[in-house]
Amino acid sequence: MSDQNIAVIGASGGLGSAFVKLFSEDPSNTVHAFSRSGMKKELANVYYDHVDLVDEESIKVAAIQSSQDAPLDLVIVATGVLHGNNLMPEKCLRDLNCTNFEQIFLTNTIGPALVAKYFLPKLQHTKRAVFAVLSARVGSIADNRLGGWYAYRASKAALNMLLKTISIEIARRQKGVIVVGLHPGTVATGLSKPFQKRVPTDKLFSADYSVRQMCLVLEGLSSMDSGKFFAWDGSEIPY
Amino acid sequence: MSDQNIAVIGASGGLGSAFVKLFSEDPSNTVHAFSRSGMKKELANVYYDHVDLVDEESIKVAAIQSSQDAPLDLVIVATGVLHGNNLMPEKCLRDLNCTNFEQIFLTNTIGPALVAKYFLPKLQHTKRAVFAVLSARVGSIADNRLGGWYAYRASKAALNMLLKTISIEIARRQKGVIVVGLHPGTVATGLSKPFQKRVPTDKLFSADYSVRQMCLVLEGLSSMDSGKFFAWDGSEIPY
Repeated sequence: MSDQNIAVIGASGGLGSAFVKLFSEDPSNTVHAFSRSGMKKELANVYYDHVDLVDEESIKVAAIQSSQDAPLDLVIVATGVLHGNNLMPEKCLRDLNCTNFEQIFLTNTIGPALVAKYFLPKLQHTKRAVFAVLSARVGSIADNRLGGWYAYRASKAALNMLLKTISIEIARRQKGVIVVGLHPGTVATGLSKPFQKRVPTDKLFSADYSVRQMCLVLEGLSSMDSGKFFAWDGSEIPY
Repeated sequence: MSDQNIAVIGASGGLGSAFVKLFSEDPSNTVHAFSRSGMKKELANVYYDHVDLVDEESIKVAAIQSSQDAPLDLVIVATGVLHGNNLMPEKCLRDLNCTNFEQIFLTNTIGPALVAKYFLPKLQHTKRAVFAVLSARVGSIADNRLGGWYAYRASKAALNMLLKTISIEIARRQKGVIVVGLHPGTVATGLSKPFQKRVPTDKLFSADYSVRQMCLVLEGLSSMDSGKFFAWDGSEIPY
């Protein structure tokens, strides 16, 4: 990808920062790296800025900032929560509680929806542009064989529904824009850390590998793919 | 259905009250009708009581009350919100807002999950029992062709994921229990009222008709159907 105006939301995370690094390797790209926590300003063609997905105004401002010189060609939403701050994926029904659900829906579902609300109108209208959100295979209802992880699974299924719904609306007025969900594989990041011991070594990817794979998938997308959900290897995942 | 111990959650709504009426027609059934608002105590073999899906303790108490004399054979969750109190289904991305999302997830997704947490252990362990939740066809990601209604669609997709996840957990320890989602069709109730004018007359069902149809579906279920999503006419709806 070259000569692109790109925004990465959640740019301080394991996958988000790998996306920023990869895009910035081509000096013809402009990269806007947004995160809630501050980031070290270490790459030359990267603009580092603040966004907090639970603060709608900050999302609105971020969308304006990243598109003031040119429309966006690519938006990557790489936020997401699975555990942390007293939050652990539920093993069984007994573990369900309202606070966990609310926190996970807010970060994994409502946040990306609000990003779509403000960033989609800033994408190219005249040529191909992509809005991609990191989802997860465990968010596929059809593919659910193991159970557990109630709130996380539900938040990603809800996210997949939103992406499909957005793709329908966008197809009516921004024909060049492709909206997709991506499954990065199981990646050695903070999100998967407590669960890595059950993953075979050859199935646990580095963030750099996963991100390179996902970029290949993004480059191969056509407008027929909008509203779909793809794994790191390009295979389509059922809802 | 006869000689059954049945709980209906959301028993004051259009569909919930029709379920209560139908079940109570057979005097060998015991029916526990739970609702947030009070109900007129008009049917002899019906116990009317309070539950509020945003009050976890009230759900716990309701589960104990309805199973103290016998395990439950059937639980119907007939709650759900689409509009009301400044809430209207979103026509487009511009209409999305965090408060709508939170309110709809709380009622349509988290509430039924908490009902499952407390009521499922009270279902029959030794013979066939059913836990059925009213979902909606617009919650099918695969079937989404029109777009819009973002939060409602997402809340029902998340609910469908929870039902599938519950069915996997329950199959391990309560083999006779069948967990399903049901699409009632478009029914002349308060929920669909603002949207009925676009529905052809022969596609707008009375609550009594829809509920009789759904009971036929419930009677025909086997353990192979657990985790699935069925329409009022018995056809399976994809996720």
